[in-house]
Amino acid sequence: MNIGILGLGTVGGGVVNVLGKNESEIFARTGEKINITHAAVKNVSEPRICNDGNINITQDAFEVVNNTDIDVILELIGGTTIAKDLVIAAINNNKHVITANKALIATHGNELLALAQEKNVHLLFEAAVAGGIPILKSLEQGLSANKIELVAGIINGTGNFILTEMRDKGRNFADVLKEAQDLGYAEADPTFDVEGIDAAHKLAILASIAYGCELQMNQVSTEGISQISGEDVAFATEFNYSIKHLGIAKKINGELQMRVHPTLIPKTQLLANVDGVMNAVLVQGNAVGPTLYYGAGAGDEATASAVIADLVDIIKGTVSHDIFGWKNLIKIPNCKPDDIESVFYLRLLATDKPGVLADITAILSKHNISVESVIQKQIDQQNNAHIAIITNRVKTANLKTAITQIQDHEFIQESVKIIHVENLD
Amino acid sequence: MNIGILGLGTVGGGVVNVLGKNESEIFARTGEKINITHAAVKNVSEPRICNDGNINITQDAFEVVNNTDIDVILELIGGTTIAKDLVIAAINNNKHVITANKALIATHGNELLALAQEKNVHLLFEAAVAGGIPILKSLEQGLSANKIELVAGIINGTGNFILTEMRDKGRNFADVLKEAQDLGYAEADPTFDVEGIDAAHKLAILASIAYGCELQMNQVSTEGISQISGEDVAFATEFNYSIKHLGIAKKINGELQMRVHPTLIPKTQLLANVDGVMNAVLVQGNAVGPTLYYGAGAGDEATASAVIADLVDIIKGTVSHDIFGWKNLIKIPNCKPDDIESVFYLRLLATDKPGVLADITAILSKHNISVESVIQKQIDQQNNAHIAIITNRVKTANLKTAITQIQDHEFIQESVKIIHVENLD
Repeated sequence: MNIGILGLGTVGGGVVNVLGKNESEIFARTGEKINITHAAVKNVSEPRICNDGNINITQDAFEVVNNTDIDVILELIGGTTIAKDLVIAAINNNKHVITANKALIATHGNELLALAQEKNVHLLFEAAVAGGIPILKSLEQGLSANKIELVAGIINGTGNFILTEMRDKGRNFADVLKEAQDLGYAEADPTFDVEGIDAAHKLAILASIAYGCELQMNQVSTEGISQISGEDVAFATEFNYSIKHLGIAKKINGELQMRVHPTLIPKTQLLANVDGVMNAVLVQGNAVGPTLYYGAGAGDEATASAVIADLVDIIKGTVSHDIFGWKNLIKIPNCKPDDIESVFYLRLLATDKPGVLADITAILSKHNISVESVIQKQIDQQNNAHIAIITNRVKTANLKTAITQIQDHEFIQESVKIIHVENLD
Repeated sequence: MNIGILGLGTVGGGVVNVLGKNESEIFARTGEKINITHAAVKNVSEPRICNDGNINITQDAFEVVNNTDIDVILELIGGTTIAKDLVIAAINNNKHVITANKALIATHGNELLALAQEKNVHLLFEAAVAGGIPILKSLEQGLSANKIELVAGIINGTGNFILTEMRDKGRNFADVLKEAQDLGYAEADPTFDVEGIDAAHKLAILASIAYGCELQMNQVSTEGISQISGEDVAFATEFNYSIKHLGIAKKINGELQMRVHPTLIPKTQLLANVDGVMNAVLVQGNAVGPTLYYGAGAGDEATASAVIADLVDIIKGTVSHDIFGWKNLIKIPNCKPDDIESVFYLRLLATDKPGVLADITAILSKHNISVESVIQKQIDQQNNAHIAIITNRVKTANLKTAITQIQDHEFIQESVKIIHVENLD
């Protein structure tokens, strides 16, 4: 089997290195020798992390996808422009395609998967979600007996690193983000990571595989972690929660919720103990109960592990998750964001005078929102206090109305902070 | 596709129930209707947990395995006597077999898998290890690009429940075991669970899949949890460790170690936070790094989830892990138990007089064993003290020799307790 690679950067270089160092194990599992015969790179003279001695290297990626000797294309360039054209060309040339490109699959997956189905080739993307964790294969095969009730994942390592440092070392967001950039975890433009877009791409893919529906990237409600303050992290700890940036897909009453947002989860949950750059996905099935899958969400060889696993599946004929694995894609109506029911954490900066808490709870109560826990702390000489509240489970619309009314009071000193709480039980 | 079930107890009943309640999801994933046409039970008049209205029920299991209309047999009886004969008969009748029977696969798997290969049918057993967690499929498919460096699992729920209760509530072993029996977690004869035999069965299977070698149940060195005392649990906590009953398979310098024993692991490890009856398996691959798989290790529907996942793989043609998945089974020499290198926890009950600790550490030192941490506590009016020690990494043989010499001293009041420590990093 001849392989062509598009891109020999972090992931592409990792694939070459892992295929080299684990050649005998992979041969034992497949009975076949895997040859990377061609690779396309942006600049042939740039240094690479892999030994590419036996690979024909070109700067013309279309030369690779049009090469009739190549059976499988690994698209490891990223982005949704040239990568898309190349994947389409490869499929049209009847080649299987494996990609680690979450943006491409999340935004153009329906079209690309339909084309692959038409051409009777595989389009696989295990590496696009949670790096080396075999979460798509687990959903498709390991949990195939289940109705999936919940998928909740820490699926952006940069965000998890930032939140972990903020919690464990009391550092602030901007400071840790700077370090993440210096360490190479975060891009120079960190928007995709810290505003939740990267996680939203992955969640859209997870949801379509878990629930057997089309990819619906435009239905993912997305909120990043850039507004999380040290006060929020500290209050969460006092409430015995940890703030994690989660991608959540839930089917409730026949409606699908897809949302990416910071979330308070109980410290006793395994997911709350997934720290640093690591990823993990909690999947609740109606037969198996809660299951969790943990591992590295990024990195050259971890991502390569997932790319090669897809390749081994193609060679062995054990592919399950292309074309969603499902015979019939299901249409699931999306839950309107305002209809989502959730527990919420609220933080208010208010003048510290008698009656303030009573006024706040009265407004909440008027909208059927009760206070499960509250912590009040005087924080400065201006006689202001932070009030942190955990509510009962309420409809988002009700909460919004209540908060608007609270916000109007003259004793409220800044915008009320609202963060989802999920007990995951 | 027609299915025959042997056994309609907890797991068999669970399979019927899950196939019923998730019929439409499973159909969407397979495009095929799954019919359980026949079932064999010990006693037809006993009540069952499942609705078996459309199933032909018999007390003659051989009637089911000899029925020419049946394509797949689910062996859910357990044990290694009649179950073995039935599996052999089913395979000889050219039927695929799916089993949840860890004892059968661990002790007779080589013979049965060879027969299945000869007859060109599948013998699958995802449910035999860690219940609903798709750990075999993950090793075979998700991690197929990796050399596996370590498998370390909490693979006996009863044992984990007992250790969790001892740690969190300060209860003693016998007391919690009694409760586990009352709750139905542990059998009336708890030997298989508390002496590690059940875990050893599962570890033998995990190791053969992870390393592509024959099943070698007789090479698993096995130690249960019945000797763990409240003092050990308390000292472990003080050292910032948690005691877990682990099955460990490691390949070091080309030699395979398979061992089941209580183990101190750092509290910061995710595995240390897997509590109660839950199972989890840590797998370290040389490309992916550490990954972890968590879920219910037992229970009717969780185990059924794994049984049906195997069935779906057969229907879809995506079977990977039968006949080990490997084209060539590898012969791996086993590491002699005395050659295993490990960190150890030691607990000594000694007369509390000057020079005792000096004498102990002198003997350890003479065998190149250094003390990384030590806690000493006077515990009674007889002027005795518990001394708990964490050593450096040493060869088991060295430790044994040193302990024999320490044990000879008149100030040692009872057998020295020795427990493995694994930092899992």
